[in-house]
Amino acid sequence: MTAAFIFITDGTEEMEFTITYDTLVRAGVKCVSVFVPSKAPTDPSQKTATCARGVKIIADTTLREVLAKNAVETADLLVVPGGAKGAATISGDSNVQKLIKRQLIEKDKFVGMICAGPLAAKTSGLPRQPLTSHPSVKNELNKDYDYREDAVVVSGKLVTSRGPGTTFPFALKLVELLLGREKRSKVQDPMVFPATAGPYLV
Amino acid sequence: MTAAFIFITDGTEEMEFTITYDTLVRAGVKCVSVFVPSKAPTDPSQKTATCARGVKIIADTTLREVLAKNAVETADLLVVPGGAKGAATISGDSNVQKLIKRQLIEKDKFVGMICAGPLAAKTSGLPRQPLTSHPSVKNELNKDYDYREDAVVVSGKLVTSRGPGTTFPFALKLVELLLGREKRSKVQDPMVFPATAGPYLV
Repeated sequence: MTAAFIFITDGTEEMEFTITYDTLVRAGVKCVSVFVPSKAPTDPSQKTATCARGVKIIADTTLREVLAKNAVETADLLVVPGGAKGAATISGDSNVQKLIKRQLIEKDKFVGMICAGPLAAKTSGLPRQPLTSHPSVKNELNKDYDYREDAVVVSGKLVTSRGPGTTFPFALKLVELLLGREKRSKVQDPMVFPATAGPYLV
Repeated sequence: MTAAFIFITDGTEEMEFTITYDTLVRAGVKCVSVFVPSKAPTDPSQKTATCARGVKIIADTTLREVLAKNAVETADLLVVPGGAKGAATISGDSNVQKLIKRQLIEKDKFVGMICAGPLAAKTSGLPRQPLTSHPSVKNELNKDYDYREDAVVVSGKLVTSRGPGTTFPFALKLVELLLGREKRSKVQDPMVFPATAGPYLV
């Protein structure tokens, strides 16, 4: 079964997290949300994230548990959502950085990053390649990467995107890359996008 | 301050809930998520919803607390999200039905319903008027209402929509109706919708 690990923490953008998680589950992907602690966690077992606009989401597990069980080794996809504060915590975590680097470079498997999430490309030391991000962090990325302004940028197994408004195209592209175009259609159609959304979702 | 109460329960569609909540918060609306109990709740103080695709969301309060404090009287907007099981619970709750009827008919204030949520129009006894819903519940609504297939249908203060794929147009329309077109633009622009999304968001 295809498996995805989606990082979450305080300040994560809840639309980007939820749209990606839900869309992948609809495609039959086993999704595990992984709580990433802040630098100095007051409660190391914390797994409830207070997201960027106040939605409180309980993660499926913690980064500590995932590392202890070596569980992330089975992941076909890792996802770093945005939200300025959340992306700073996730991209600043040295364990996350190692997982991302190993996923892409040693294992040649997918990593998705959206909004401020692509900061993790830089903190993980990924080499120069095409990517995009939320415009608010463009200046932190455009010297080291071939910065694009497309809604979704696929560079080998690294898939980047821009913000809440591009999360549906991002999540559906991940489904397509993992499971093919037919599965993507099966997921997309019952979501009842209007006909006018065609060019947006391409 | 403009205030919205958004119902949530086990089986609520988490994208529809989260996109609406987050978008309204971005517009400066005070959002309160209200957990609606099942018919025979094992724990009357429950306020964690296991949503339709497994995301666990802790509501801000419970319907019981809101009723005890008469808090919902201050609402400028009530929202019923979808998810088949969640919408069945919410639309089947007699307290919710009374709140919806009072909000629309006595107070002439806004109610939003999306996906299977518009079932609540029927269970609340709202009169015949234009509305839409997820296609899966069309047959339960099209005898009693002037059924439409537009992404968002505004009928006086009742605003209905179709599914996850129409939640951004739905939420942004609610912002526009509550706070005007300028506020809508201020919320929509930093979400980084691509230019191709224009016709979709109209």
